[in-house]
Amino acid sequence: MVEVKLGNPRDAAGVSREADSPRSSLIAHFGAGQPLRLDAGIELEPFQIAYKTYGTLNAERSNAVLICHALTGDHHVASVHPVTGKSGWWETMVGPGKPIDTERYFVICPNVVGACMGTTGPASFNPKTGKPWGLDFPVITVRDMVRAQAMLLDHLGIATLFSVAGGSMGGMQVLQWAASYPERVFSALPIACSTRHSAQNIAFHEVGRQAVMADPEWRQGRYLLEGANPRRGLAVARMGAHITYLSDAALHRKFGRKFQDRENPTFSFDADFEVESYLRHQGISFVERFDANSYLYLTRAMDYFDLAADCGGVLASAFKDAKTRFCVVSFTSDWLFPTSDSRAIVHALNAAGARVSFAEIVTDKGHDAFLLDEPELFAIVRGFLDGAGKARGLKVGG
Amino acid sequence: MVEVKLGNPRDAAGVSREADSPRSSLIAHFGAGQPLRLDAGIELEPFQIAYKTYGTLNAERSNAVLICHALTGDHHVASVHPVTGKSGWWETMVGPGKPIDTERYFVICPNVVGACMGTTGPASFNPKTGKPWGLDFPVITVRDMVRAQAMLLDHLGIATLFSVAGGSMGGMQVLQWAASYPERVFSALPIACSTRHSAQNIAFHEVGRQAVMADPEWRQGRYLLEGANPRRGLAVARMGAHITYLSDAALHRKFGRKFQDRENPTFSFDADFEVESYLRHQGISFVERFDANSYLYLTRAMDYFDLAADCGGVLASAFKDAKTRFCVVSFTSDWLFPTSDSRAIVHALNAAGARVSFAEIVTDKGHDAFLLDEPELFAIVRGFLDGAGKARGLKVGG
Repeated sequence: MVEVKLGNPRDAAGVSREADSPRSSLIAHFGAGQPLRLDAGIELEPFQIAYKTYGTLNAERSNAVLICHALTGDHHVASVHPVTGKSGWWETMVGPGKPIDTERYFVICPNVVGACMGTTGPASFNPKTGKPWGLDFPVITVRDMVRAQAMLLDHLGIATLFSVAGGSMGGMQVLQWAASYPERVFSALPIACSTRHSAQNIAFHEVGRQAVMADPEWRQGRYLLEGANPRRGLAVARMGAHITYLSDAALHRKFGRKFQDRENPTFSFDADFEVESYLRHQGISFVERFDANSYLYLTRAMDYFDLAADCGGVLASAFKDAKTRFCVVSFTSDWLFPTSDSRAIVHALNAAGARVSFAEIVTDKGHDAFLLDEPELFAIVRGFLDGAGKARGLKVGG
Repeated sequence: MVEVKLGNPRDAAGVSREADSPRSSLIAHFGAGQPLRLDAGIELEPFQIAYKTYGTLNAERSNAVLICHALTGDHHVASVHPVTGKSGWWETMVGPGKPIDTERYFVICPNVVGACMGTTGPASFNPKTGKPWGLDFPVITVRDMVRAQAMLLDHLGIATLFSVAGGSMGGMQVLQWAASYPERVFSALPIACSTRHSAQNIAFHEVGRQAVMADPEWRQGRYLLEGANPRRGLAVARMGAHITYLSDAALHRKFGRKFQDRENPTFSFDADFEVESYLRHQGISFVERFDANSYLYLTRAMDYFDLAADCGGVLASAFKDAKTRFCVVSFTSDWLFPTSDSRAIVHALNAAGARVSFAEIVTDKGHDAFLLDEPELFAIVRGFLDGAGKARGLKVGG
């Protein structure tokens, strides 16, 4: 091993250590002869997948639910995050008695390939060089993420998923699962997502990437090696992205034009408005837990996502002969993945003859509604899984 | 004068020189005893206003039309830009035979206070220190911009404007003109604007400012003094803002998911998609002609804009007893200043008993539609000014 100079442990190196030795996580190692075959034409070998499980796999191995996380999410879906100490990102949805009920289902949530919380990604050490991968890490796709997850299921001895669920980039993985491994997916819950990233969404991602790469601390992607950390660039990227996760109405309701701790403007560039202070906090807290290069790789994977393009331009072909039961969910105020995107999924599924239900939930909370307290979403997910469970012959308690 | 080290002449210093000695511009100097009284409680003295005029002022001095420019616009409304060599930004609207017909009207367009094209702003030299103002320049408001423009009209001996017109930040100035100097405004054309900046818009501006300030080349605002230039930060800010000027539909129509000069993804962070390449170009070309600190000041002025707040929270009070004829225009796909904002203007004008017409133009071009080839907009502006001209008793040709 070559000795590597690392930065402030609270900075990038902290993220880096989590990338290789994730706390509070299970790890599946894939060594020589078990490469992940990437869309870029490269074989990633060795690699590892960090994951969490909740609940118990039943004797028939028929109650497994795979949760796919979003761009900045991770596998700590329903338990404390080892870096931030905060609750899991979907504790409202996943847990004992929750809509995705861990007393009924065996929940598996893997960290995606390219991320920074224990599954191999650009912040991981490349054992061939003894240095962090950085930009030498191959560019990955949503299909690659799903291919790795299928290897994890093989490793766990799970042939078929009772369900696969996720929102945003997680929803893209759900759709990719249904397209790549239809025989392994009994039911699927793609939430607030699309079969392809729009030009506007690519544009927002590109601004975020440019913000990271404009930071001299990024060092052409070699910041972990050089003891640097592009905190400011990544924070700007997060701030911009965060706006797209909310809605005009939600921001108006929550902040309006309220001043921060004062009555009148300061006539300065301080965070006069509450919304400015809130956004700055979002940026600062994000960089404590996320790797800048991972942000580049995962946004890129979302941009590349285009299920129809993989099937000669005909989206319905992606779901041909699908036996999977689908429940597609969108939110009225989601302008990142608007309802029209979800309708396109539903039309393609209809054209493919698939069994599909669709719910558009009225809310002003924007894209992030899938992560928030949305009783209608909870009721829909619970009802859909109940119905699928009956069809599958699942017994309560596994 | 203290000697000042300036940067690369093609960089910030080029903008800086234009800030003090604008080419192809008229300049009104306001010296001792003629201060601009700012909302921040400061008197700016001396200061100058760079402006352009087109057409001829008639004998009655009754055919003057003031054009107010947007955030990154300037006074080169209908003639070649001295830095970029490109056509004026509103040549489709202003000129001989155009909707704002310079054969009928005497058009005046001043560069706003705080900008960088010849009117005093943060890139200008502060004669009291012999150095560029930088962040020592006082934070200004839209009302300050309009107050300075009123001083320019006094300087030109024009008591009353036949009309005042502008889009976006220009539209804010139009509204402020009608509120601050109702007796001086015969007709007003606020386009694609609002009486107050929304939380979401403040949020987008804050991201842009943070992108600039995150660039180490910004040097706490002292880049002109230190021979630096926060090009990358300003380019990122512009890229993000530019998305908000367009629409999802326009980006889809124009770029979709088309690759740039290739058939397949490169699996890299190059500008694979046309929309990425387009955005990068927008960012790079912007920094050639704009000052980073000016960007901070002008976005701040827009954020502070809130006509109702200046009138005890009652918007209609801002237009009390207005004799001005209004034509309010919005665009269906403008999500920065949506039609609901324009309707709020119309409701307030109705409540104030003002004469107002309102047009919502159907287009997918987004906020920037006011700058583009929109025949319906041209017809509306021409018709509105014709009608106002008859009421004003204007003769063709002045």
